[in-house]
Amino acid sequence: MLRVMNERAVFGEIFRLGPVSRPELAQATGLSKPTISVALANLGRAGLVREVGLRAGPAGRSALLYEARPEAGWVLAVDIGRAFVRVVLANLAGTIVTRVDDPSGSRNPTDLLAQLTRLADRLTAEVGIGRADVTLAVFGTPGIHDKETGALHLAPNLPGWEQPGAVDRFSTVSSSPYLVENDVDLAAVGEATYGLGRGVAHFAYVSIGTGTGMGIVIDGKLYRGARGCAGEISYLPIGEGDPLQADPTAARRGMFETVASADGIVAAAQRLGWAGATSAKEVFDAARSGDPIAERAVEVEVNHVAHALAAVTAVLDLELIVLGGGVGVQGGDLLIGPVQDRLRHLVALQPPRIEVSTLASDAVLTGAVAVGVTAARDLVLDRMVATNT
Amino acid sequence: MLRVMNERAVFGEIFRLGPVSRPELAQATGLSKPTISVALANLGRAGLVREVGLRAGPAGRSALLYEARPEAGWVLAVDIGRAFVRVVLANLAGTIVTRVDDPSGSRNPTDLLAQLTRLADRLTAEVGIGRADVTLAVFGTPGIHDKETGALHLAPNLPGWEQPGAVDRFSTVSSSPYLVENDVDLAAVGEATYGLGRGVAHFAYVSIGTGTGMGIVIDGKLYRGARGCAGEISYLPIGEGDPLQADPTAARRGMFETVASADGIVAAAQRLGWAGATSAKEVFDAARSGDPIAERAVEVEVNHVAHALAAVTAVLDLELIVLGGGVGVQGGDLLIGPVQDRLRHLVALQPPRIEVSTLASDAVLTGAVAVGVTAARDLVLDRMVATNT
Repeated sequence: MLRVMNERAVFGEIFRLGPVSRPELAQATGLSKPTISVALANLGRAGLVREVGLRAGPAGRSALLYEARPEAGWVLAVDIGRAFVRVVLANLAGTIVTRVDDPSGSRNPTDLLAQLTRLADRLTAEVGIGRADVTLAVFGTPGIHDKETGALHLAPNLPGWEQPGAVDRFSTVSSSPYLVENDVDLAAVGEATYGLGRGVAHFAYVSIGTGTGMGIVIDGKLYRGARGCAGEISYLPIGEGDPLQADPTAARRGMFETVASADGIVAAAQRLGWAGATSAKEVFDAARSGDPIAERAVEVEVNHVAHALAAVTAVLDLELIVLGGGVGVQGGDLLIGPVQDRLRHLVALQPPRIEVSTLASDAVLTGAVAVGVTAARDLVLDRMVATNT
Repeated sequence: MLRVMNERAVFGEIFRLGPVSRPELAQATGLSKPTISVALANLGRAGLVREVGLRAGPAGRSALLYEARPEAGWVLAVDIGRAFVRVVLANLAGTIVTRVDDPSGSRNPTDLLAQLTRLADRLTAEVGIGRADVTLAVFGTPGIHDKETGALHLAPNLPGWEQPGAVDRFSTVSSSPYLVENDVDLAAVGEATYGLGRGVAHFAYVSIGTGTGMGIVIDGKLYRGARGCAGEISYLPIGEGDPLQADPTAARRGMFETVASADGIVAAAQRLGWAGATSAKEVFDAARSGDPIAERAVEVEVNHVAHALAAVTAVLDLELIVLGGGVGVQGGDLLIGPVQDRLRHLVALQPPRIEVSTLASDAVLTGAVAVGVTAARDLVLDRMVATNT
């Protein structure tokens, strides 16, 4: 038991410190050098740690350095996006070794699972492992995974996945354990681990694209809410009139999402007189060229986003809001300044900094890798322990 | 150092377990019985713990029981409310020993501090102690205490307190250390400790009265936000039109507070045709008697509160919302059912339970006692340690 704790501590410090010597590990863990040696020997025998060379030390002595063997574990990270399915294989060091972005086809469970299995086969073959060698798979999906029923709620763009047991079928993609997480929550973890949220205690990742959503980090930790639905800003009661009452289909979609998502921007441009507007990107490009209708449509979007962030600020008082999603990334330059100005008129509180995600369309995948690598390190160590006892 | 840790552990368990024997303390702390005896002797010598009698044990043996001496510390808890200043003296067991509710007079710092000092003198005299015997004072105020400048922000009903250093003058009320906390945050702590929030991981206390505010408890702990402004729902962008733009004075007050506070309900009744409406209570009473204008005014309030709670639900996904404040407590029976119905149309998420605070107008004071007693227990122990070294 104590031995396992020591091995876990040494393994953790090796990841944290990179190539590291025995004396450094002794200092970092508070364990004795002989204990470190035993732990390193066990970790080495299990293929989790390897020697990587020497570092010149004081007085001409040189220290043997150790690092985690990156190939000791593999994470299959999947982002089930609206336009693309993105899949990567990352090793235990968190390095993405291979990646594929495949256009989304039919998205019912059977077709989507077949597509994912095919992509997983391709990536594992590229790396020279089998699907069975994947330590852990992480699936980022829209909506909320109901663990009790195995259904996916609030994901109208994934037809069939609301059926009980549908999510459990992810087990067929790889024979490994798997996690299913809300995509925007994963993006928030991605920002906290590798992006603008590093070292920020309280922040949110706000995604505006084909849909809208928010991942909340409080005290450095993902906040999920009582039923996993925290940050479902699609339902913020913000917009013209009350679309949830006027249009029964909108009730499923939410008031803020209806007006502020990419579709909402196009609808605003059309309403303002640009009948042929087809995409948010097109509206942003026209606004940058000085088209007055497009500029008005952007103002409408600014107003909606400012009201939503006013509500978020009044409730959460965050340090930082990272803006992501297709609309957030493509239109951030046009939105952020005016939103910040408007926010100051809406709340007599110091508004949060607002910045465009630097991870952009990779935020979800990045978060899936971060979550997956942390869990996979525990798994490979658990397996070593199970083998040794 | 170790001795102090042991005494702290024993003192904590005595509070948690009530009258308790040496064997029970040994089991609860994991310390040996001789160590427990030494700690109890030191705590007894310092006047923090006393023997309270015997409990019959197995095989005819009886165990000596110990409890914390309630008079070993005193907390002066103050709620600076709009209509009343409420002050209590609670002992270290958390029992409120004496209390006074005094109508609010002039509220500038000099007058309010004179009033508080007079009340503190009266209460301490009743208990037979001096102001210097107060272990800790806790002041619950509206607004946000800026610790760097000593000013109170966002409390327009406390004129003069926005001046730098104003809050530091609380030190003149008692010579003890003191804490200044937002009143609605204290009410949330009161609900978490003694009210409907006991055992609930994620909940909020929503106060609607002369003003509006929200205290948020996440994972059982008060969440204050990046600058202490979390839960400032007065600024939720909810209401007819955009009062922050239309009326420059409203910017200080906030959009939701303007329409949903007691004044907002009266204004709605007047607008709907009841020119002589003067108080929210009167509107609620008339609605209960079937007056159609009052019923319409209540519907307007239901709509505003439902929109605010929809925003809170979309962001936080809480288990429970405790409704407090004058409007919340007096009108809860008329508001909660319709608000819950309306909420189901606004968010496609499972809405939180909504219940009227059972602590009612005592929620702030109760929270101030809870915060104060916890801090005072640490303080009396720190003083014992300082005396012994």
